[in-house]
Amino acid sequence: PVKPTDPEPWTSPSRAGQIMRFGWPGFDNLRTYEDFVLSYDRRTKTAHWVIEHLTPDRMTYDPSVDRSKCAFRPDESIHEYFRSTNEDYFRSGYDRGHLAPAGNHRKTQNAIDQTFYLTNMSPQVGKGFNRDKWNDLEKHVRKLARKNINVYICTGPLYIPKKEADNNLYVKYKVIGPRQVAVPTHFFKVALVEYEKDKYSLDSYLLPNAVIPDETPISQFLVPLDEIERAAGFLIFDKVPKSQIKIINGKKLGFW
Amino acid sequence: PVKPTDPEPWTSPSRAGQIMRFGWPGFDNLRTYEDFVLSYDRRTKTAHWVIEHLTPDRMTYDPSVDRSKCAFRPDESIHEYFRSTNEDYFRSGYDRGHLAPAGNHRKTQNAIDQTFYLTNMSPQVGKGFNRDKWNDLEKHVRKLARKNINVYICTGPLYIPKKEADNNLYVKYKVIGPRQVAVPTHFFKVALVEYEKDKYSLDSYLLPNAVIPDETPISQFLVPLDEIERAAGFLIFDKVPKSQIKIINGKKLGFW
Ligand SMILES: [Mg+2]
Ligand SMILES: [Mg+2]
Repeated sequence: PVKPTDPEPWTSPSRAGQIMRFGWPGFDNLRTYEDFVLSYDRRTKTAHWVIEHLTPDRMTYDPSVDRSKCAFRPDESIHEYFRSTNEDYFRSGYDRGHLAPAGNHRKTQNAIDQTFYLTNMSPQVGKGFNRDKWNDLEKHVRKLARKNINVYICTGPLYIPKKEADNNLYVKYKVIGPRQVAVPTHFFKVALVEYEKDKYSLDSYLLPNAVIPDETPISQFLVPLDEIERAAGFLIFDKVPKSQIKIINGKKLGFW
Repeated sequence: PVKPTDPEPWTSPSRAGQIMRFGWPGFDNLRTYEDFVLSYDRRTKTAHWVIEHLTPDRMTYDPSVDRSKCAFRPDESIHEYFRSTNEDYFRSGYDRGHLAPAGNHRKTQNAIDQTFYLTNMSPQVGKGFNRDKWNDLEKHVRKLARKNINVYICTGPLYIPKKEADNNLYVKYKVIGPRQVAVPTHFFKVALVEYEKDKYSLDSYLLPNAVIPDETPISQFLVPLDEIERAAGFLIFDKVPKSQIKIINGKKLGFW
């Protein structure tokens, strides 16, 4: 029952509204799950992007929520032509890598369960990436989330061209399984941190989907945001007022 | 002025409604031009698909419409990060190949002009493809349009995987110019022909973006529609009642 001091229910933002506070990168095949929002790419059979909203309160551990009860499963709401399945990943040599990490969504069993939809997975190199450096980056984000007012995260796969011997640029990626799920060449993660009311820092990471030496610091993967946006084909957090972004990739913006 | 015998204007379908009569393959970055509808892929910097509606009446030649007055030009309504430009094609070795052909849109100068937006172009092999076999297919479609009640055409680029020496499948395509416009490996064209009221034939063509010998008949490029749909990541003309499709790729459907 709504308590008298609560705002009118229709004036309080929906969870999706909170998560998407700083803009929609696109509107292609949206899935609004309980605690994250995802846009699915039916051509590559993995997401375009996933957006999450983290706060200190949401990072608290609920002992009744049990990750070991979760199971990787297809999202049946995607047409069968375009739906990735466990069979696609089986014996592929790649992990089913979470885009929205399970560890960020421990408020309810349903929220963590939904991170196991295959819509939220991309083929990731296991040892040396998903289980190591990429996991380090996810832990770094949770650390930020425990110490700041609001953290917004946009994560996704990329397909970045490479120069070949003929001096031309080529995009090349493997596809796995009967549905031909794309193995991204890279992954990005952009963290928008509200560290004081209406003051933001923005970190944008671009990592190759490859074994990365343990000793490499994650700061080595910081790149200008527009490098990610141009490759991805969408804008990320473009509704944050530019004047409220005070720190970019660890550098304070000065006066000019 | 509306003549008394005209239907109420709001009951007559819009041109876009006519063109899109049999369903929208997707809703990503739509551009509704005067005589065709297009969905733009900001990642590849070329379209997902283009849909046209052709009739005998629309195929008549208007001598005041002049193709030589048309100019290839960027669509400024696309964000500059994702907008392909003439510079991207310059000295690339590829033609700016029309998806909706200029020759299908000769009713008004504006309609033909709009086919020259770079949103409607893909990098195509010139000699042996754009200027030859692909052009033959376009002429074949216009012949159909002159002889049938309604012809609906969906055209677009594809990026089809190929098996390499390691026995894995890889998608590989070149990108050209500063905006890294994708050079598709293939193009598709699907023709839905209403040859009698509520009776349809469906032809789906898949051609490699490569020099094709003149003697190859276009019928050799007919493939099952779902092969195109699975690779493209969308459904094509999925709102046609299945029972009204009487001929598929030239084969009459029998009783069963
Ligand atoms: Mg992981
Ligand atoms: Mg052409």
